[in-house]
Amino acid sequence: MIYLDNAASTKINETVLAEMIPFLKEQYGNPSSIHRYGRLAHKAVEKARKQIADLINADSSEILFTSGGTESNNTALFGIAKKYPQSRIITSSIEHDAILEPCKKLEKEGFDVIYLPVNKYGLVDPLILKKNLTKDTSLVSIMFGNNEVGTVEPIIDFTKICKDRNIIFHTDAVQAVGKIPINVKELGIDLLSISSHKIHGPKGIGALYIRKGISIDPVILGGGQENGLRSGTENVSNIVGFGKACELSRVNFFKNVSKMKELRDYISKKIILEIPEVTLNGHPETRLPNNIHLTFLGVNGEDLLIKLDENGIAASTGSACSVQIQKASHVLQAMGFSHEQITGSLRLTLGISNNLEEMNKTVEILKNVVAELRSVSPFKEKYSF
Amino acid sequence: MIYLDNAASTKINETVLAEMIPFLKEQYGNPSSIHRYGRLAHKAVEKARKQIADLINADSSEILFTSGGTESNNTALFGIAKKYPQSRIITSSIEHDAILEPCKKLEKEGFDVIYLPVNKYGLVDPLILKKNLTKDTSLVSIMFGNNEVGTVEPIIDFTKICKDRNIIFHTDAVQAVGKIPINVKELGIDLLSISSHKIHGPKGIGALYIRKGISIDPVILGGGQENGLRSGTENVSNIVGFGKACELSRVNFFKNVSKMKELRDYISKKIILEIPEVTLNGHPETRLPNNIHLTFLGVNGEDLLIKLDENGIAASTGSACSVQIQKASHVLQAMGFSHEQITGSLRLTLGISNNLEEMNKTVEILKNVVAELRSVSPFKEKYSF
Repeated sequence: MIYLDNAASTKINETVLAEMIPFLKEQYGNPSSIHRYGRLAHKAVEKARKQIADLINADSSEILFTSGGTESNNTALFGIAKKYPQSRIITSSIEHDAILEPCKKLEKEGFDVIYLPVNKYGLVDPLILKKNLTKDTSLVSIMFGNNEVGTVEPIIDFTKICKDRNIIFHTDAVQAVGKIPINVKELGIDLLSISSHKIHGPKGIGALYIRKGISIDPVILGGGQENGLRSGTENVSNIVGFGKACELSRVNFFKNVSKMKELRDYISKKIILEIPEVTLNGHPETRLPNNIHLTFLGVNGEDLLIKLDENGIAASTGSACSVQIQKASHVLQAMGFSHEQITGSLRLTLGISNNLEEMNKTVEILKNVVAELRSVSPFKEKYSF
Repeated sequence: MIYLDNAASTKINETVLAEMIPFLKEQYGNPSSIHRYGRLAHKAVEKARKQIADLINADSSEILFTSGGTESNNTALFGIAKKYPQSRIITSSIEHDAILEPCKKLEKEGFDVIYLPVNKYGLVDPLILKKNLTKDTSLVSIMFGNNEVGTVEPIIDFTKICKDRNIIFHTDAVQAVGKIPINVKELGIDLLSISSHKIHGPKGIGALYIRKGISIDPVILGGGQENGLRSGTENVSNIVGFGKACELSRVNFFKNVSKMKELRDYISKKIILEIPEVTLNGHPETRLPNNIHLTFLGVNGEDLLIKLDENGIAASTGSACSVQIQKASHVLQAMGFSHEQITGSLRLTLGISNNLEEMNKTVEILKNVVAELRSVSPFKEKYSF
């Protein structure tokens, strides 16, 4: 199989798994226990916290472990919202459901939630953000890199605007971490969500960066782990793996990114050149290095996926996180895409292990599969397939 | 090391880890993805769901995956509370903090929370529960087996009382699962919390049994996984391990329990016989098969733990989940223990791998360590050490 769905999940790096194994075998202590087993587990958790902090230039004390990107986003939104009842919360219309669904809930609870529009590239205009800020705005949450079309938002423009007005800024950086250089201090970010399994670490673990000085209410209460901000026995093995994945991501950052970019640009050009009536979506320049989002007019994306799968290629139509419900992408809708354009969309997302041969093979198969599907398309007459 | 802190965390069973490995290596798909990787991951999650359901005689559709026992408890309490604003919620005074802390939060939000007292054995009296039920009582949450002293509560008496009045009954069964036979249908339980790492499965994964017909509000929102009740990419490898741990727990139930009971009774008797001024706490009969909770008068439990650790024994003073904060046990306080009794307490909790030789060695070391500490105790004159 050629795996081109790295935005959905990635393969755990072998070095990462090797670091996890002792904590799945003999090092099974509870980090809260006083004895040797407990102390070793505690030490491992703190080492990982530092590895995660280092990736984004944070302090260890600013890293909160969660069960993943979704919980990080929920913790940021609910955690801040509880502190500022009935305030205005501003987000964008192209966020992941892990932002949009909590926002909808907060709206029902009386918060004034604003969903900023985007342009055809999926970009939020800082001027529009500025116009929507009010005195009672508590939080702005705009994603770093979009999970469907790959567009990278002008985060520093947003943080500057927020800083001037003392408004807290959160970003869902689940897709951007390890792909875009992120220095939370330089960028002036207050809260940032990370997921382990998007950067070749294990699933079920993530983090929320909380800048020193920002106070949140916990979502999950109990034994008081994570300084009382997230209770529950720490997922030690996955935390250790997550830490190692962050370290590898930091150390190999430029190598990884340049490799992914090269492959991305190669396959993008080849597809545009060899397949008719295809468009590349998202911003052509400021985009994630591993994302290729395409529209094949006259083709149903679902059919395309199934055909690709039959031919040994794992891809996606958009977000994998919307549990097999076939709903039209809200991201593409917000970007002004027609129903037909949305239907014909395909997302290819690269990982660190992909290679040129796979790119060539993918284009070959894609060419055949698209032609096959178009030959029976009801839109056949409309286009010059 | 002799590991006698299995109530804090357990060693992952080798067979469990073997089942997890493929999902930490080549089977890295996101269960929501349509392609082969996704389908395999999805299938594995559903297989595990059945294994968990089978352990407690539930249907697969009644099992909700969470990040652990704490999240399960939070989901039960907040999930029901949201449905019945300002109602009465009844719990006990010896619950884990993962119940007590959410209850305190709900109290602040206007819920009428009642903390039932216990007798000297840690038992909640069903008659007292009955007396506290009102027309606006929405939920009763009483733990199955106590994590500190091991007392097992008369769950069926509670569920009968609740059923008559249409009140939802939840139990935190984190310590009881795999140790006490649990048939949710026979027992008439509506909601039940399970944790994987207490039964020789991995950390960071748990489940909430939700009886068909019971409706809860989700705590974590997003992509709509787990039928919209718990969003976030599934922790596939840990879910698979958790499933296998439940299967092993079911298959080897009587073997495991009788072995633990035998060792527990052996070491309990030996300690009582060979060490002066020691009491066995919790209920003498209806108790978890792996729990031994003791008070050594004139000894400081913390000192005892450190000495035991130095001598190669991993034990606990009580709950491991209260993050190294040295606060007096609320469980022992509720049972009417004096400060001195609380201070001198020690918890030994057995796992499936402990053996007789370890028990003998533990008593030998305990005897010496207790004598050593007592020789410098300020209470020396008070007792006949």
